[in-house]
Amino acid sequence: MDKLKIAIVGATGVIGQQFVVALQDHPWFEISTLAASKKSAGKKYLEAIKNPETGAVRWFCDNQPKQDLLEMNVEDATKLNLGDIDVIFSAVESKVARELEPKYAKRKPVVSTASAFRYEKDVPILVPGVNSEHVKMIDVQRKKRGWKGFITTQPNCTTTGLVITLKPLKDIFSLKKVIMTSMQAISGGGRSPGVAALDIIENVIPYIPEEEEKVQLETKKILGKYVGNKIEASKIKVSCTCTRVNVIDGHMEAVFVSMGRDCTIEEVKKAFEKFGDDLKSLKLPSAPEKMIVVKDNPFRPQPRLDRNTYDGMATTVGRIRKDEALINGIKYVLLSHNTKMGAAKGAVFVTEYLKKAGYV
Amino acid sequence: MDKLKIAIVGATGVIGQQFVVALQDHPWFEISTLAASKKSAGKKYLEAIKNPETGAVRWFCDNQPKQDLLEMNVEDATKLNLGDIDVIFSAVESKVARELEPKYAKRKPVVSTASAFRYEKDVPILVPGVNSEHVKMIDVQRKKRGWKGFITTQPNCTTTGLVITLKPLKDIFSLKKVIMTSMQAISGGGRSPGVAALDIIENVIPYIPEEEEKVQLETKKILGKYVGNKIEASKIKVSCTCTRVNVIDGHMEAVFVSMGRDCTIEEVKKAFEKFGDDLKSLKLPSAPEKMIVVKDNPFRPQPRLDRNTYDGMATTVGRIRKDEALINGIKYVLLSHNTKMGAAKGAVFVTEYLKKAGYV
Amino acid sequence: MDKLKIAIVGATGVIGQQFVVALQDHPWFEISTLAASKKSAGKKYLEAIKNPETGAVRWFCDNQPKQDLLEMNVEDATKLNLGDIDVIFSAVESKVARELEPKYAKRKPVVSTASAFRYEKDVPILVPGVNSEHVKMIDVQRKKRGWKGFITTQPNCTTTGLVITLKPLKDIFSLKKVIMTSMQAISGGGRSPGVAALDIIENVIPYIPEEEEKVQLETKKILGKYVGNKIEASKIKVSCTCTRVNVIDGHMEAVFVSMGRDCTIEEVKKAFEKFGDDLKSLKLPSAPEKMIVVKDNPFRPQPRLDRNTYDGMATTVGRIRKDEALINGIKYVLLSHNTKMGAAKGAVFVTEYLKKAGYV
Amino acid sequence: MDKLKIAIVGATGVIGQQFVVALQDHPWFEISTLAASKKSAGKKYLEAIKNPETGAVRWFCDNQPKQDLLEMNVEDATKLNLGDIDVIFSAVESKVARELEPKYAKRKPVVSTASAFRYEKDVPILVPGVNSEHVKMIDVQRKKRGWKGFITTQPNCTTTGLVITLKPLKDIFSLKKVIMTSMQAISGGGRSPGVAALDIIENVIPYIPEEEEKVQLETKKILGKYVGNKIEASKIKVSCTCTRVNVIDGHMEAVFVSMGRDCTIEEVKKAFEKFGDDLKSLKLPSAPEKMIVVKDNPFRPQPRLDRNTYDGMATTVGRIRKDEALINGIKYVLLSHNTKMGAAKGAVFVTEYLKKAGYV
Repeated sequence: MDKLKIAIVGATGVIGQQFVVALQDHPWFEISTLAASKKSAGKKYLEAIKNPETGAVRWFCDNQPKQDLLEMNVEDATKLNLGDIDVIFSAVESKVARELEPKYAKRKPVVSTASAFRYEKDVPILVPGVNSEHVKMIDVQRKKRGWKGFITTQPNCTTTGLVITLKPLKDIFSLKKVIMTSMQAISGGGRSPGVAALDIIENVIPYIPEEEEKVQLETKKILGKYVGNKIEASKIKVSCTCTRVNVIDGHMEAVFVSMGRDCTIEEVKKAFEKFGDDLKSLKLPSAPEKMIVVKDNPFRPQPRLDRNTYDGMATTVGRIRKDEALINGIKYVLLSHNTKMGAAKGAVFVTEYLKKAGYV
Repeated sequence: MDKLKIAIVGATGVIGQQFVVALQDHPWFEISTLAASKKSAGKKYLEAIKNPETGAVRWFCDNQPKQDLLEMNVEDATKLNLGDIDVIFSAVESKVARELEPKYAKRKPVVSTASAFRYEKDVPILVPGVNSEHVKMIDVQRKKRGWKGFITTQPNCTTTGLVITLKPLKDIFSLKKVIMTSMQAISGGGRSPGVAALDIIENVIPYIPEEEEKVQLETKKILGKYVGNKIEASKIKVSCTCTRVNVIDGHMEAVFVSMGRDCTIEEVKKAFEKFGDDLKSLKLPSAPEKMIVVKDNPFRPQPRLDRNTYDGMATTVGRIRKDEALINGIKYVLLSHNTKMGAAKGAVFVTEYLKKAGYV
Repeated sequence: MDKLKIAIVGATGVIGQQFVVALQDHPWFEISTLAASKKSAGKKYLEAIKNPETGAVRWFCDNQPKQDLLEMNVEDATKLNLGDIDVIFSAVESKVARELEPKYAKRKPVVSTASAFRYEKDVPILVPGVNSEHVKMIDVQRKKRGWKGFITTQPNCTTTGLVITLKPLKDIFSLKKVIMTSMQAISGGGRSPGVAALDIIENVIPYIPEEEEKVQLETKKILGKYVGNKIEASKIKVSCTCTRVNVIDGHMEAVFVSMGRDCTIEEVKKAFEKFGDDLKSLKLPSAPEKMIVVKDNPFRPQPRLDRNTYDGMATTVGRIRKDEALINGIKYVLLSHNTKMGAAKGAVFVTEYLKKAGYV
Repeated sequence: MDKLKIAIVGATGVIGQQFVVALQDHPWFEISTLAASKKSAGKKYLEAIKNPETGAVRWFCDNQPKQDLLEMNVEDATKLNLGDIDVIFSAVESKVARELEPKYAKRKPVVSTASAFRYEKDVPILVPGVNSEHVKMIDVQRKKRGWKGFITTQPNCTTTGLVITLKPLKDIFSLKKVIMTSMQAISGGGRSPGVAALDIIENVIPYIPEEEEKVQLETKKILGKYVGNKIEASKIKVSCTCTRVNVIDGHMEAVFVSMGRDCTIEEVKKAFEKFGDDLKSLKLPSAPEKMIVVKDNPFRPQPRLDRNTYDGMATTVGRIRKDEALINGIKYVLLSHNTKMGAAKGAVFVTEYLKKAGYV
């Protein structure tokens, strides 16, 4: 099988680097183009990721990039030669995404971690196993916009773990209300300059601008139904408080849900553990062995100990208990790796699904 | 005015030391006795707080103890001479409290931070301004147990800030449901050995044994009514998830409430800001200038920046918003200093109220 | 006594804010002018310190600014009306300092925390009690440059604690070599953007650009002699490794010194404790009760517990031991508050000395 | 090749668990016995590592133990059946080691991470490549004590990285003085209870009891010569200050050395990079690809980014510079993984060497 040729746009940034790591040994995909802003264009990748003042290499992932990638020339993202590219992974900021992504999408598939098009009606926010059927919006989108390619988007990193755990609850018990408080890692705040140490050390910050609105909106869209060429947002009521804590990677969320019918802890546990079983037959290379891992130890999940479960692709859940305040209430705690399943690797996972589904 | 003579039992521990700091310059009270376990009895206080192996002084408060206290002899808590003592502050662990406190209470008032008697029907959990009327349970208790003295208790440090903010909401808007996720400081975990650095650094721990049950139970008791010589627990439904974060002092709580009627953000803000105004006329020395301080800056309150508001006696509130999931829902974030208002200084505050009310 | 009229230039930045806090209740000085860049000029101080995007007040000190200062108009630093000003505190970055400070100095005294003029031969780096005699360089400078005013500078915050402890050793035992490893707080890295949380959490950074060179150079200059209208740099050999650790405030330094003669631990301790006694008669308002506080507890000093000794103006020393590698070797650990004695408050302290010495 | 049968004594503790991880997939060794105190004896390993109160599994390594090990019965360490065991790894505390290890050594080889026998004249402290020749002390020891087995020990985790970097300097340039300040991770403080979070968060502790003496003594012993059936301690002067910082794993050390002759940065770099090349031919499974990795980026090494270089078995060095205070002075920074190369995995590495050398 010939590997699909991949362009990573925004390749020098944190998420871009995560794409490099997620793709450099991929069995189905092969990085053929690294693109970035004019400032980096024309340089070798190794040069482009150096701090211009100190000359120090700024590499933010645990895994190192391969030598041949370091020597690859970085292209100007505004002048990409799309001919030889099969899929474009877009890791640029939203403002830039709004300009570049439609240009690419005219001709090629774009899988984006930016929020630029996430809330457009004909653009799906895909999470394999949760709303695989939304993939059909791509056909609607192509038709409507007259594109040969398309844009599909990743959810906000805080939404990912939430919808993965809500989906089985919704399917089995029906879901009425969701109340969630997040304790988010600083890596979600990006890099330039990112969260200042003086702000977060020995501290909690109770506000992340626009985060709560995104999570509430995306959750309802992702859990919505594809009906008649449209995604009908779910009627579930969702309310969040999003905070930042002194953790490097891994978003923890304390979730309280009200369901359509009474259920036992054991039923909920089983629902979580079975979730994603139907994905297995697809043998997607980035799929975790289990989409949701349930911990019985009440002290788990913990960000530092559990974020890398199945290489950061599983959502870890613990502390499943009855909730006494909500009707048919259940509460639990979840942990999702915000820069793996919640970002680049999650986008690669989606693209694997798109390939199986015939869209790339 | 003659100062009341105070005994601090458990004086060598963290909370005992906080009592020393809170009382050593008090206008109404004067420390006349420091008591601890047999191990410390007979030693000077300075010697008793030294690490027996290294000889290093183990003092855990920012404020230093005065010289005359350091030279005071530590008494054996099991053999306290109660004759000259007006009030006993008990800072011992619950098991010890269960034994010692009733012995003291036969003759003298005991104000306890231990949980040993907190859930007994005739023992109030007092928070001035929130449930001052529960002070009458002291009379019931005395009668029932045949004591000259009495026991009154402090809430769990996580309950304190919660009930202070819930009380005005309950009084003005009526309160139906409370859903709360706490992000608690490590100083709440005590000292010997306390939270291990290896467990909490760059991490969140989603479980604090028994904490949620305590908060749920205490909140309903404190917000209950004193009717016919009984405290009738409130019918409000309360559900919590209590987590530990990498913060030294200051418990943050993300609260979602459902109220009896609709209300505006402004009304809620005003309710918070007015709360405690009636306490002012009592001029209690430890009372904060405002019981609740509302922050408009959405990035506040933060533990490191706001925990010491009014010397750690105020509850700081921010991010008051409409909640979309609950009926007449409001959500907000609060911060309460767990080792000041939530512990020793809070107990001193209660005792000031007891004096005004004629109980000590 | 009429208070001296003070201008704070760079008043909106972190050090500028520290000047505000250090000066707003000062018995000898009074803030008459707040100045900053064009961007802030014309605004009220309260408006000028707000984040332009979120509107949130960005105040970085524990102590709050007074209301009248918040309402003061911020002046354009390039157009300062020098007529009514007695002393200018300069808290701007070095590039800006290089331009502005000479303009001010033509007419008025400038006390600067910037490094711009620190290494010029006729500009002293003053630390009261350590090199008070260097104040005479001001006369030389005025003469040479034809200025009515002058520029005097503060050392790098890492140099301050070091020279304070080295001075008594040099005077009493003579000093040959100094080897120092610093563990510096992140507040020394400034604010915009400052040290990134992703870089320092659960980590140590072994390099702070230019820091070691500064400390080595400044130590020799400050410990130098004023001879014949010149400061002759000390011949002491100084070598440092400067690292950044996960601490908010307070630079710790592990120091190894080789002295001119053998000495006992007790002698060294006494030398530290007596240091600064001669300053006392001057009754400078910002002077700490003791310049150096010696801790016998081997676990001290610690940044979080000891940085605020005498309101952050004392240098705390501990672990004085014989060193086995150097000739007449002694080793110890010191702690100095980098944003108090090591920055704005240290500059106020110097200015108090300048007033007593008749220079302002 | 038949695998050697291994007993891990102290298997339930932190280092014991690290032995399990280091040995469970080892090509030459096979865990046949897990032993611990009476309290654990008779239980399955999985049960023995559970917290007795909460039932929660206490596993401290990133890598998980295999199922068959979890089901293995834990033996009573005082009643070990030595017949079937080829090598005993001892991970018990020093007091226990003093009793148990000689009993084992009468019959079998003991490789110990405890300090109990580290300073006995006939017991080597082995670091492969640094003092491989000290292995001959085993023969002396056996003869002197009449043992069939023997005891060999691991250095303190702070000594390991230091001697690895000093050895090539000593061999090539001759070494006179070593001055070192360590910034040590909290995992070196063990687990029960280990470093308290309240002590180390946002802090540095400038003292680790007995650590400096150990490092100074061990460095001279390890760098000593095996002459005439004795290890003659090196005459190098060594002085340390050991501090604890807020880092999970990885000891950083700022080192200043005085050498016997002048040398260039390039020579030093080369000396580091070549070190250990002769070990390669032995093909020891746990040997890192390079014993010392030199970083040119001045911001490196950093504990969080570099501790896992070659799976935690390499010592990372950076910031090699001329030192201006010492004769022929060089300074650098090193990083060594304290719970991998500095503990269990380091002991496995030694044992691999012992096998090649015919001692096990």
